[in-house]
Amino acid sequence: MALTQKFGQVMQIRIGFELAYHHPQPTPMVVMLSVREERRHDLRRADTITFTPSLDAAHYHDAFGNRCLRIVAPAGSVRISADALIEDSGAPDAVFWDARQHPVEELPHETLRFLLGSRYCETDLLSNIAWQRFGHTPLGWPRVQAICDFVHGHLQFGYAHARPTKTAWDAFNEGRGVCRDFAHLAIALCRCMNIPARYCTGYLGDIGVPPADAPMDFSGWFEAYLGGRWYTFDARHNVPRIGRVPLAYGRDAADVAISTSFGTSILTQFTVWTDEVSQRAPLLQATG
Amino acid sequence: MALTQKFGQVMQIRIGFELAYHHPQPTPMVVMLSVREERRHDLRRADTITFTPSLDAAHYHDAFGNRCLRIVAPAGSVRISADALIEDSGAPDAVFWDARQHPVEELPHETLRFLLGSRYCETDLLSNIAWQRFGHTPLGWPRVQAICDFVHGHLQFGYAHARPTKTAWDAFNEGRGVCRDFAHLAIALCRCMNIPARYCTGYLGDIGVPPADAPMDFSGWFEAYLGGRWYTFDARHNVPRIGRVPLAYGRDAADVAISTSFGTSILTQFTVWTDEVSQRAPLLQATG
Amino acid sequence: MALTQKFGQVMQIRIGFELAYHHPQPTPMVVMLSVREERRHDLRRADTITFTPSLDAAHYHDAFGNRCLRIVAPAGSVRISADALIEDSGAPDAVFWDARQHPVEELPHETLRFLLGSRYCETDLLSNIAWQRFGHTPLGWPRVQAICDFVHGHLQFGYAHARPTKTAWDAFNEGRGVCRDFAHLAIALCRCMNIPARYCTGYLGDIGVPPADAPMDFSGWFEAYLGGRWYTFDARHNVPRIGRVPLAYGRDAADVAISTSFGTSILTQFTVWTDEVSQRAPLLQATG
Amino acid sequence: MALTQKFGQVMQIRIGFELAYHHPQPTPMVVMLSVREERRHDLRRADTITFTPSLDAAHYHDAFGNRCLRIVAPAGSVRISADALIEDSGAPDAVFWDARQHPVEELPHETLRFLLGSRYCETDLLSNIAWQRFGHTPLGWPRVQAICDFVHGHLQFGYAHARPTKTAWDAFNEGRGVCRDFAHLAIALCRCMNIPARYCTGYLGDIGVPPADAPMDFSGWFEAYLGGRWYTFDARHNVPRIGRVPLAYGRDAADVAISTSFGTSILTQFTVWTDEVSQRAPLLQATG
Repeated sequence: MALTQKFGQVMQIRIGFELAYHHPQPTPMVVMLSVREERRHDLRRADTITFTPSLDAAHYHDAFGNRCLRIVAPAGSVRISADALIEDSGAPDAVFWDARQHPVEELPHETLRFLLGSRYCETDLLSNIAWQRFGHTPLGWPRVQAICDFVHGHLQFGYAHARPTKTAWDAFNEGRGVCRDFAHLAIALCRCMNIPARYCTGYLGDIGVPPADAPMDFSGWFEAYLGGRWYTFDARHNVPRIGRVPLAYGRDAADVAISTSFGTSILTQFTVWTDEVSQRAPLLQATG
Repeated sequence: MALTQKFGQVMQIRIGFELAYHHPQPTPMVVMLSVREERRHDLRRADTITFTPSLDAAHYHDAFGNRCLRIVAPAGSVRISADALIEDSGAPDAVFWDARQHPVEELPHETLRFLLGSRYCETDLLSNIAWQRFGHTPLGWPRVQAICDFVHGHLQFGYAHARPTKTAWDAFNEGRGVCRDFAHLAIALCRCMNIPARYCTGYLGDIGVPPADAPMDFSGWFEAYLGGRWYTFDARHNVPRIGRVPLAYGRDAADVAISTSFGTSILTQFTVWTDEVSQRAPLLQATG
Repeated sequence: MALTQKFGQVMQIRIGFELAYHHPQPTPMVVMLSVREERRHDLRRADTITFTPSLDAAHYHDAFGNRCLRIVAPAGSVRISADALIEDSGAPDAVFWDARQHPVEELPHETLRFLLGSRYCETDLLSNIAWQRFGHTPLGWPRVQAICDFVHGHLQFGYAHARPTKTAWDAFNEGRGVCRDFAHLAIALCRCMNIPARYCTGYLGDIGVPPADAPMDFSGWFEAYLGGRWYTFDARHNVPRIGRVPLAYGRDAADVAISTSFGTSILTQFTVWTDEVSQRAPLLQATG
Repeated sequence: MALTQKFGQVMQIRIGFELAYHHPQPTPMVVMLSVREERRHDLRRADTITFTPSLDAAHYHDAFGNRCLRIVAPAGSVRISADALIEDSGAPDAVFWDARQHPVEELPHETLRFLLGSRYCETDLLSNIAWQRFGHTPLGWPRVQAICDFVHGHLQFGYAHARPTKTAWDAFNEGRGVCRDFAHLAIALCRCMNIPARYCTGYLGDIGVPPADAPMDFSGWFEAYLGGRWYTFDARHNVPRIGRVPLAYGRDAADVAISTSFGTSILTQFTVWTDEVSQRAPLLQATG
């Protein structure tokens, strides 16, 4: 596995999106497109979300701490956009082979909900398979990595294989999927093995890797709780990456849709960007 | 439908349980068997949970506000019991036909998670069916009642039809189930119609109804959010009842298992009671 | 001490208020005037808050679970009102002399914040006094009652003695105050003795007691955590009462102001009502 | 004001502490000495807290999201220690002069509690002073900086001026204090001006500044909410610093004591370290 061996330079990443929707009639929406609280202290230009036409938006945090906005989109078109600047350490996803697996009785309370089944992660259906396949792997990081390696090899990637109702069980049986399905299957298997795992959406650029041929999209990956913290894993790419910026965590994709429309809604434009910018941008200013 | 027409007398209900488990080896468990916070002010004798042999138990509230206990059950047998006394208004489940349905944009933030799909409530699969069947019913209470009436008629009750992996979609297609399946299907249909619905477990005695022939068990019902509060609905019985005491709320049964064992666990005893006691029990004492 | 010796009849209470404010310029406000979640299941007519002129209001729950509304009051006058109906068991405040005091190590986590000092409850200043005076009283309910008896006797009641910056320490030294000060001093003393105590505001009518000569106002009392639940105490009246309806809990009055204006704000009208209504009101309707 | 003008190199900081207490009898304690959630993803060696003698510790998060441990310290001595490694961007505290002040109606709900008075920050007593002094300064970052400049100049620093019951009002009137008092006074003044402000404790080494003559201690500073995020301010040092690692946030020092003992407790040892380590430590390991 390729791995960036040295620590990075602090860099700044320009992140943003422009989405447009058409609604036949006024339609309530929830959008989950703000940078997670854990990384807001790195924002150098705020990720203020702009609606065109301008709209009242109410702001709240859901039960996972995700920052959500509620609007009523008017009949016709609505454009939703943001363009922010975030500081990043430039370090790749941490790899810490010695991070130990907590026995269940030691896990913090708030991690326990990430051991249960959820809409797209049927732990009850996958439990026997998980124990047969991973019950003899070493505990902790190696076990999660074994799960990622299995999922990475078992599923064939392809956009043609995506559907919104697809679950981990479906993906396991069909043998193909998109990044969301890779994450769901790995999450379900981790939970079966009593390792808390949560779904994550966010920005993931191609910093440090060859540019992808596909147009830029938001990405889905997962986190596992080991050694006292949540670590990033990515069964789709299965290699540490630079410059992830998380938007939302949840039990699975059902919890963290970037937008939820309560009525008929047609997505008419979808553009996402995440680009490294020059370090010398004059954003750090003297105070006196 | 039968309905108790007058308000009740305040009464006291003795509630409790005695469960026993066998574990081949020390096994972490979470138990969710305490009365919900909303009703704790009615407890006249606390629902202290006793473990035999005696064990350290850590106490926490999950993301739904349910009171949970964590233990490590020793190898061998463990007995878990409580015996409490709770005051109850004696009024049947409220029926308020005029409780209006909130448009989505008006719903309190914290109710929105009860519109999403969950492990046993596949809103994505049931949405078209729900709109075809209930899209022309009157909004609000009558719509939820129409859903209950449908589920009550569509599913045939029978303990033989229970299985832990059964979902609302499965129940809809198989046409049979237990109280949990009635609740899951009604919940999924309510959510499809943009009415927040949550699963509830608790005590439900046979006060005011003919005694059931089945041994006493905990019950599963649901609540729908209408007119600014959560109202109780019960698609299984489909009639207001007296003396429900809720233990836990969640998105579906996956969130509110009365016990979760992280390892092999065999249930060896299961006794639950809920009985009206004399009003003259000398529990209300003068202070001076 | 007077005490209603028998259990009550379920009754309905009409509760509501009409407040008016004048603002020289548009002014953000937070109002905390909704019935607490624990009692919303008893509402028979919702406590919908109406603003005149009509205004957009955003709804949220604060860190204590209180239901808050945010508005921007326009320049000029704004009227805020509600008129609800709530079912009540008719039982007086529970008195449970045997409710035991939990040693600190047993207290639920979420009660611990109610042991700390807060704006109007200076535990650090009152600790020595508390231990000298109550260190030899029996643990549990008798100790809280001893604190109430002391505060009830030590403070002289009088509206002339109210000021918004007055703390428990001030009240203790000055020997006089209003219901808020009685509560603050009792709370601070309980916390010094390691008994969690929280401030409560709400409706308290004169059901079962001689009508007060003062115009009706919201009331302030407190709750102490004993025997696995929060119990109501009232050092001002120092006798169980019927028909309390809580609006908000907090560490002290700083957390639960019925309204907070972020700018100049003049209260021009203040009316509160809480009246028992006939039990035969046709609110419980048959469903079919 | 001095300011590091360039972005830093990613570095690793060794942080830890060794505390010892003597208790005449078994004593419940809460310790708040774990790295905040927002920075846990930077831990390269976990900040596991060790108790000597070894003890059962229960883990929870308080209402501010701080990670707390509860123990019952035995009679005699107890030693509490941790020794962790954390990655840091090496960038100084962000200075973003253009970060705008949110009008109150725009503030996220969860920031509103940081506008209220609290034990050591008497906004009610300081409001007039704040508006007279800062009402004409430019909104946003310049206003917070004006508050910091005032506090930095108004208070004389000195360990001799510390006492646990000292409030912002006391510090303002006495004209002297320690880092905690500088933070409390600046927090109270920000809140008076409708800028949410919260107290922060944590590690702060002397990276990039001349070593202090005082022994290393935990530090107290504050954060203000501007431009969509919380920014660090430090009225004591009043200059951006490198390498802060936050342990806990709260309304003031009453919420974030590093340890709280419920009984007599004598601190017998207090050692804290925070040192930059070589970047070449072999902690980033290949996975395969």
